[in-house]
Amino acid sequence: MNVGDKHYRTIWPHPDDQATVQIIDQRLLPHRFVIEDVRTVDQMCTAIRDMHVRGAGLIGAAAGYGMYLAALEADDTCEAAFDASLQRSAQQLMATRPTAVNLEWAVERQLVAIGAIDWDVPAKIETARRTAQEIADEDAAFCRRIGEHGVRLISEISRSKCGETVNVLTHCNAGWLAFVDYGTATAPIYAAHDREIPVHVWVDETRPRNQGARLTAWELGEHGVPHTIIADNTGGHLMQHGLVDIVITGTDRTTYTGDVANKIGTYLKALAAHDNDVPFYVALPSSTFDWKIRDGVKEIPIEQRDATEVRTITGLSKGEMTAVLLTPETSPAANYAFDVTPARLVTGLITERGICHASEEGVLSLYPEKHS
Amino acid sequence: MNVGDKHYRTIWPHPDDQATVQIIDQRLLPHRFVIEDVRTVDQMCTAIRDMHVRGAGLIGAAAGYGMYLAALEADDTCEAAFDASLQRSAQQLMATRPTAVNLEWAVERQLVAIGAIDWDVPAKIETARRTAQEIADEDAAFCRRIGEHGVRLISEISRSKCGETVNVLTHCNAGWLAFVDYGTATAPIYAAHDREIPVHVWVDETRPRNQGARLTAWELGEHGVPHTIIADNTGGHLMQHGLVDIVITGTDRTTYTGDVANKIGTYLKALAAHDNDVPFYVALPSSTFDWKIRDGVKEIPIEQRDATEVRTITGLSKGEMTAVLLTPETSPAANYAFDVTPARLVTGLITERGICHASEEGVLSLYPEKHS
Repeated sequence: MNVGDKHYRTIWPHPDDQATVQIIDQRLLPHRFVIEDVRTVDQMCTAIRDMHVRGAGLIGAAAGYGMYLAALEADDTCEAAFDASLQRSAQQLMATRPTAVNLEWAVERQLVAIGAIDWDVPAKIETARRTAQEIADEDAAFCRRIGEHGVRLISEISRSKCGETVNVLTHCNAGWLAFVDYGTATAPIYAAHDREIPVHVWVDETRPRNQGARLTAWELGEHGVPHTIIADNTGGHLMQHGLVDIVITGTDRTTYTGDVANKIGTYLKALAAHDNDVPFYVALPSSTFDWKIRDGVKEIPIEQRDATEVRTITGLSKGEMTAVLLTPETSPAANYAFDVTPARLVTGLITERGICHASEEGVLSLYPEKHS
Repeated sequence: MNVGDKHYRTIWPHPDDQATVQIIDQRLLPHRFVIEDVRTVDQMCTAIRDMHVRGAGLIGAAAGYGMYLAALEADDTCEAAFDASLQRSAQQLMATRPTAVNLEWAVERQLVAIGAIDWDVPAKIETARRTAQEIADEDAAFCRRIGEHGVRLISEISRSKCGETVNVLTHCNAGWLAFVDYGTATAPIYAAHDREIPVHVWVDETRPRNQGARLTAWELGEHGVPHTIIADNTGGHLMQHGLVDIVITGTDRTTYTGDVANKIGTYLKALAAHDNDVPFYVALPSSTFDWKIRDGVKEIPIEQRDATEVRTITGLSKGEMTAVLLTPETSPAANYAFDVTPARLVTGLITERGICHASEEGVLSLYPEKHS
């Protein structure tokens, strides 16, 4: 999407140097827009582990490009040495964020692709480069299709409001910064904006890590989409007063029965949407479905993160990134990262294949090959 | 309640100097505990306006003591001059927080009390002193009675859990810092703790002004009540997993029909409590009832505050109170301060007269004199 007047993805090959990958260092957003050159596997590992890049789709794409850098720097004295180098890099990349499903998937895809090429170093490197590009392109294409399906919902609301601005509420960042381009929850919003359907986004700040206030607000602002940041406490009040037409969020894992694990607080917004007859949609690529778990509330494990993320926050003070303590020194804090919204509160799922009801029947109607 | 091992109220006469009032400067909590001497009406006006003291009950008590200082410094050359001085001080105090109902009520009560005394300056001053003390004592007594009624709910849950810890969730600060002592939502918690009923409090941080993370956590910690600070997003997940036994909040205004205006985000917690069969109680003194408004959601006006409170936050960095910017420079933010929880989501109201159903019938059963 656009930053200023220029179109960016979150990761891309350096235009003048085939051996360098470029990323946006997201740790510094929204206060600084810094493009980082990544030249080695070590550097890519640092970028993933320390969250210069984050978000399911982008982590996968970064791992894909990481394996391309691995092929470039592999020991090419003989095939066995090359393969051993590649395996070491693969292990190193996969260890950066052990729970990220897309990471392992992208690394494996590269190992299979590079391994399928007969012993010829330039050909293997070229395959790695092309596969990295394919992974990134596919991610962007899936998100774009989610946008095309989802924009119909926004355009219907726009018609029913006689062209008045459609107010969308979103939680956390399921934007282009979490993927290669477009995002999932934001894809229908960008599609609507680009088609000149008047749209305005209520951006939940998304404590404790403030992905909404920092990242979603920034990317919407840079692309020119009208938006307003609100405390996470605010959505219910807005819905009671008719100020939200539709909620669209992303998800970290959705069961085939339609239960949605997403950033902590999503469940509260789904309850408020249900109480006020506001449609509540979840946007996701097929890779985010969990085809094994039936009861999301009972079975999806919820990560507990360091309490420091609740007790302190980082922002800009006198031009410097500064962490401040928000709580008493001795008060403990708990930091549950996700919650699960039961399918009964979800109006529908927006996938790259289309929109379906949040139920086993609905999901399997889009993914008939998953019928057991 | 206790700070360290010592009992404090939020406001009290200086023990060695009849002409000085002491307060806790709440702007510096939880990072610094500073007692401030207030010697003039001007100083008390600053303390109220700039929120050294805040909270419905405490603002009333501060205004009461402010009028005592007014009597001390009034022109005593003749009765007319004295009365004119007192009126000027009354106007000055009432202008500090124009929407605070308790402020006007306390000032009026002092004017009536002082005016009822025949022309004798020492007698008028003594009346002002005694009335200020009465206002503070009554506030504390009402809160203590709310605690005595409310503790029965906690003790019942404790019995049904065979003495296992009772987990209470609260939002914002309806603690002793908002009143003279005990608080409203916290009064049943302190009463339970002091009776050695094991109790633990989930403290919503309460964005954007973080009254939970700053004030409620601090006062619970100082009194030795086990507690854990959580992001406002977290309560729904905790309730889904049986980790909350009861929710108790305060309120800024409650209609006689049981609709509850309270800090923004209260409605979301009430929805989650309802969805998970967790009892949701609201604690309030009778002065907080609105006897005129029938439909709280439609009729109670909701204050919108400065967006700066959402965009920046103040905390402690290297020993200094520091404000940091959390959002993009150019992103707008909205700051709705309160929301309204419909009576249907409220299990009951805890008042100084007892506990009642959140309905017109329930409220009037406790306040039969309000039958029209």
